[in-house]
Amino acid sequence: MATILDGRAVAKEIRAEVAREVAALGEQGVPVRLDVVLASHDAASATYVAMKRRDCEEVGIVSEVHRFDESVTQERLSDLVDELNADGRVSGFFLQLPLFGHLDPVPLTSAIDPAKDVDGLTPLSAGNLAVGLPALLPCTPHGVVQLLKRSSIEPEGAHAVVVGRSNLVGRPLAQLLLRENATVTVCHSRTRDLAQMTRQADILVVAAGRREMVGAEHVREGAVVVDVGIHRAEEAEGGLTGDVRFREVEPKASYITPVPGGVGPMTRAMLLHNTLQAAKMQRAGDRPR
Amino acid sequence: MATILDGRAVAKEIRAEVAREVAALGEQGVPVRLDVVLASHDAASATYVAMKRRDCEEVGIVSEVHRFDESVTQERLSDLVDELNADGRVSGFFLQLPLFGHLDPVPLTSAIDPAKDVDGLTPLSAGNLAVGLPALLPCTPHGVVQLLKRSSIEPEGAHAVVVGRSNLVGRPLAQLLLRENATVTVCHSRTRDLAQMTRQADILVVAAGRREMVGAEHVREGAVVVDVGIHRAEEAEGGLTGDVRFREVEPKASYITPVPGGVGPMTRAMLLHNTLQAAKMQRAGDRPR
Ligand SMILES: NC(=O)c1ccc[n+]([C@@H]2O[C@H](COP(=O)([O-])OP(=O)(O)OC[C@H]3O[C@@H](n4cnc5c(N)ncnc54)[C@H](OP(=O)(O)O)[C@@H]3O)[C@@H](O)[C@H]2O)c1
Ligand SMILES: NC(=O)c1ccc[n+]([C@@H]2O[C@H](COP(=O)([O-])OP(=O)(O)OC[C@H]3O[C@@H](n4cnc5c(N)ncnc54)[C@H](OP(=O)(O)O)[C@@H]3O)[C@@H](O)[C@H]2O)c1
Repeated sequence: MATILDGRAVAKEIRAEVAREVAALGEQGVPVRLDVVLASHDAASATYVAMKRRDCEEVGIVSEVHRFDESVTQERLSDLVDELNADGRVSGFFLQLPLFGHLDPVPLTSAIDPAKDVDGLTPLSAGNLAVGLPALLPCTPHGVVQLLKRSSIEPEGAHAVVVGRSNLVGRPLAQLLLRENATVTVCHSRTRDLAQMTRQADILVVAAGRREMVGAEHVREGAVVVDVGIHRAEEAEGGLTGDVRFREVEPKASYITPVPGGVGPMTRAMLLHNTLQAAKMQRAGDRPR
Repeated sequence: MATILDGRAVAKEIRAEVAREVAALGEQGVPVRLDVVLASHDAASATYVAMKRRDCEEVGIVSEVHRFDESVTQERLSDLVDELNADGRVSGFFLQLPLFGHLDPVPLTSAIDPAKDVDGLTPLSAGNLAVGLPALLPCTPHGVVQLLKRSSIEPEGAHAVVVGRSNLVGRPLAQLLLRENATVTVCHSRTRDLAQMTRQADILVVAAGRREMVGAEHVREGAVVVDVGIHRAEEAEGGLTGDVRFREVEPKASYITPVPGGVGPMTRAMLLHNTLQAAKMQRAGDRPR
């Protein structure tokens, strides 16, 4: 019987901390503000943006959305990125991806000032993380590490196995776990015997984007299992499911994240945390470069 | 009996390729030039710089050294970095570290244009590598990968274990091996049972900076072993030795690098390769950003 890693509870704790600090900054006349660039008609994106705005509101972060229709040009967005970088009232901002198909996101995201890169996904933020310089950290991997540490699971010295190597999750998570002094293995679709690798994990994080791919055969007795995957559950079930077959793995694991209620809420909370961090760094003048 | 991974021979092959391309560019009126900033009285640094200049000369790359004494200021070097970034005649450049103690290398190296960063060690180059954008690659890790591939050892699908996580070797090597589709494990001084981890390696790369630390007990029968370490050999022996106890490991390995004559010459060759790459990229206008 595994202990549930309760992402909702830990995220709530983080939101409360952020709210306290945002209020304190507010009393000193420093507003914390998150701007969002929405340049698509993607329905999921609209939902995410609405959700992020509600999250901001809850903790006292001001949020502004810059909404565009299909007539928007690359140049207009490039100018907007420059404006947001320069605007002292904006603590941080991000481009909600995907953008309209005629736009190239790479030069736009690459131009985001690392001091305002609340998604932590630009090349310079990734590089600062890699070389150990101050950086805003990508929300999902940072959420995973915070969930572990705030649940008294110490990565130091543990063998952490990460399944997945995306820029969004797997790669930066490997960096973060290494920084926490775990021994880190990264697996992916070309890994030869996945189960043989994952069975060695003290901490197994699955971010493969494959519905219920990981079962009991992949997990060592007593391992900590973190499921990053999110998929709509099949048929009438209605809810969400992950990359891990929860019912099968839970009895073997010592700790396990549920889906939903595990990594998802942590990701959302870390965006708020990053926005606060950005505001604090800009205030102190010790901004990543 | 292991096959020797002959870094000298492979480096020679690379130098010949570079020389051919440098000559071809020269015929088109495009000189390839490497600039070096030397701001220390470190004897080893002076030796390295002389060596790198000789290497350049051999392949037809022009080299210039900017030499400073202790009176040099941070501002002067910062201006020099800007000048070298802007100078169209300079293909690439690097600061030979360590600098004089009163200088802070981080803002200087961070300011190097990634299109001219022939050491591949700036945060932006590290980030471009991490997220899969074009980048000049750090010489030692890239040398290791080239040595493997040009010796018909395919990292794809192999389990590669890297001992060491420095910004210079371990971390970027892990990125490169991952890009080559190896399953990658990174070990370091906090790794609990090192031998148990390294014994799983199909490809074991040791960059721990600990003289002859790795022995037969660390190596699986038939593994490929790459020794990045360089240490002056003890006592009267005179020569160099590595992080691996060669005599003990060689009979178990399928392939093994000697020290000297393994990774060292590859590192030197990759600097020439990068300088050529930089010249070509700047010419084509497809520079990393
Ligand atoms: N909870 C949250 O807040 C949150 C946030 C972000 C993402 N997610 C979810 O997390 C999952 C991963 O997201 P992502 O953006 O990282 O996905 P992604 O970009 O599709 O990357 C998936 C990674 O998993 C690897 N992979 C795929 N199939 C595999 C297999 N059979 N065995 C081993 N590795 C395999 C892929 O390997 P290759 O590189 O070889 O292709 C790739 O590196 C998705 O379900 C996503 O919805 C959740
Ligand atoms: N052949 C070449 O061209 C070339 C080029 C560069 C370097 N080198 C040589 O390569 C070696 C490594 O260089 P570097 O710059 O990467 O060194 P470094 O910055 O000292 O890093 C050494 C790494 O090894 C880890 N380590 C130290 N002792 C260990 C142990 N007992 N078990 C497991 N891991 C251990 C350290 O772990 P922590 O992070 O936990 O401290 C660290 O990550 C040196 O001998 C250097 O001279 C050779």
